[in-house]
Amino acid sequence: MSSTEPAAVLSPRGLERLRTRHPWIYRSDTRELPETPGIYPVRDTRGRTYGWALVNARSEISLRMLSYGEAPAGQETLLARLQAALDYRDALAPDADSYRLVHGEADGLPGLVIDRYADYLVVQNGSAALEPHLEALVDALVQRLNPKGVLARFDNRSRTLEGLETDVFVLRGEVPEEVECREADVRYFARPYSGQKTGAFLDQRLNRQRLGSVARGRAIDVFSYHGSFALHLAGKVDHLECVDVSAPALEGARKNLELNGFDRVTYTVANAFDRLRELEREGAVFDTISLDPPAFAKRRADLGNAYGAYKELNLRCLKMLAPGGYMGSASCSFHVSDADFYLMLADAARDAGRRVRIIAREGQAPDHPEVLGIPETRYLKFALLQAID
Amino acid sequence: MSSTEPAAVLSPRGLERLRTRHPWIYRSDTRELPETPGIYPVRDTRGRTYGWALVNARSEISLRMLSYGEAPAGQETLLARLQAALDYRDALAPDADSYRLVHGEADGLPGLVIDRYADYLVVQNGSAALEPHLEALVDALVQRLNPKGVLARFDNRSRTLEGLETDVFVLRGEVPEEVECREADVRYFARPYSGQKTGAFLDQRLNRQRLGSVARGRAIDVFSYHGSFALHLAGKVDHLECVDVSAPALEGARKNLELNGFDRVTYTVANAFDRLRELEREGAVFDTISLDPPAFAKRRADLGNAYGAYKELNLRCLKMLAPGGYMGSASCSFHVSDADFYLMLADAARDAGRRVRIIAREGQAPDHPEVLGIPETRYLKFALLQAID
Repeated sequence: MSSTEPAAVLSPRGLERLRTRHPWIYRSDTRELPETPGIYPVRDTRGRTYGWALVNARSEISLRMLSYGEAPAGQETLLARLQAALDYRDALAPDADSYRLVHGEADGLPGLVIDRYADYLVVQNGSAALEPHLEALVDALVQRLNPKGVLARFDNRSRTLEGLETDVFVLRGEVPEEVECREADVRYFARPYSGQKTGAFLDQRLNRQRLGSVARGRAIDVFSYHGSFALHLAGKVDHLECVDVSAPALEGARKNLELNGFDRVTYTVANAFDRLRELEREGAVFDTISLDPPAFAKRRADLGNAYGAYKELNLRCLKMLAPGGYMGSASCSFHVSDADFYLMLADAARDAGRRVRIIAREGQAPDHPEVLGIPETRYLKFALLQAID
Repeated sequence: MSSTEPAAVLSPRGLERLRTRHPWIYRSDTRELPETPGIYPVRDTRGRTYGWALVNARSEISLRMLSYGEAPAGQETLLARLQAALDYRDALAPDADSYRLVHGEADGLPGLVIDRYADYLVVQNGSAALEPHLEALVDALVQRLNPKGVLARFDNRSRTLEGLETDVFVLRGEVPEEVECREADVRYFARPYSGQKTGAFLDQRLNRQRLGSVARGRAIDVFSYHGSFALHLAGKVDHLECVDVSAPALEGARKNLELNGFDRVTYTVANAFDRLRELEREGAVFDTISLDPPAFAKRRADLGNAYGAYKELNLRCLKMLAPGGYMGSASCSFHVSDADFYLMLADAARDAGRRVRIIAREGQAPDHPEVLGIPETRYLKFALLQAID
């Protein structure tokens, strides 16, 4: 162990943080950092090595721990973890051709996210220290999966915090504007170049199938976006109303639903709060409800308002839920904890005067695992509810 | 609405409780209660009807709400809810011949629990007000399911609180000492007359299958009891050790495993804490771990000690978990909240120096639904974990 070799040197507080095994260490908890982003040993001021990390002095989160102990970590470590990530997805054997292949920290590859959409791969990277190794990682991906194209979606905000440029470009092969994907017994178009999470929201995959498995009667899909929930309802119900405030989003939903030959669908361009109020006034009753709002609490400070907004939506939906009817209710706000979410639902059920049972409490699909001890990696809540009477 | 008709009359605090839709109302929140247990209207002191309830003046929980509003509820209500409960289980189409048919409050049938074990039914009842209607309910059950026998397991403690006698007896047909049951691709013996939860713990059904689906290599099943987790591991792993402090329980496990032709299993009669310490000293490593301890926190006051006990067990297991290995970790203590449980796991992983991901957060199988707003109906936590490295 040489003290002249570049290394990330931690302060006593940084060492304490390291001891808790939280993989992110802040700049303020370091004493010395190499200038060039990369993989470096993590040391104390006396030169003792505690592990290896992706290090970027420009980022506030300056260290993302790769390994603990003295054994060096490097590109080989990253490549081995990529293979393990792909093995894990093979073992999951998802009933879909589109799912997440690499989920950052949870696959031991901090900052790296790789999604598969049928024959195409979409790569996101939010770590400057990992960027020099991307070519090798993509080569390994191509060799194992032989995709028709690989797209770099280097346009996420986290890149700016890391001092990385933002861009969207083809890394390998060709990537079309739209990719037809399969999820259980439905098909949809993903848009690799655009759209929030490319429009597909892969983390909700199993929740959509779960709600679809009980869907029946008159149904409504609130915050439809590109119809990813609607697709799993439309084939099972008598009639479906898709509600979204964005006309282009609903056009995407229509295109996806028509791809599967689903008619008996109404598309309503409207603010969800307004539309639910209107339906309630009309005395509407639904046997199946999907409620998947956007993240109302993007910051901790939004929590109070977000609670109120989630509650209002759930209250209105529960009032219109038929006895025995099913409702899938989601929140993707990290700041809304599991406990908050179920408290909000109980609160809404009480105010709606409804007795409701929880069939299942779900979260992210297992191709988006969370990391024990990093609360930030748990964000999606999905409750499958049923009105008792 | 006649004021001479017997009714449960609530105090203002009872009315407030009713307004929150919590279905249990305590004796101290009532003004007047009929002497004979049964189904009665629920009124305020001015005679206004708010709903109908199972009423028992002898029980501290004197009212269990059946319905809200003025429409009368009675035996027909109970019978309709029984049919709905059976419809719901049909819709779930469980991959097993043994599962819960009626789950009390969650099926709108407070106090009533009915389990199916292959061709036999086991009925538990903890409501004196419901007891007069049991014959009619059992008749309906027999008519629809045509079981070979129905057993009354009237030996639960809650009956004493209701002033009911405790007894175990055959209600219909014949019920053998042991019933051979099927769960996914394994078989086991349930003991309708005896055993904790008849030895089968149906609420963990899907969790066992979930852990079984990833099981491999060297495996250990800690707190094996009758081997209900072990059964789903033994066919997939190279070697399995079953640990339980009770020799008769382990004999039950052996019998179940041998029924399926599983050998390569070691049965260790030992205290789990001691055995795990010993294995750790020996440097044992496991690819698959099942850890399903009994409820350490039976009362709120036990929580501190229970947290320590759960943590010690999880810590020791995580230390012995191979990189990439899977562990299923459960807690059935109601007093250990979801948040407590995952905090404990994170705490254990940190102290074990392991990076661990959460593949799935599970709870009770959907034939044991919980009721929104009755925290008591949510008790089982099951985490499927995997060591990242």
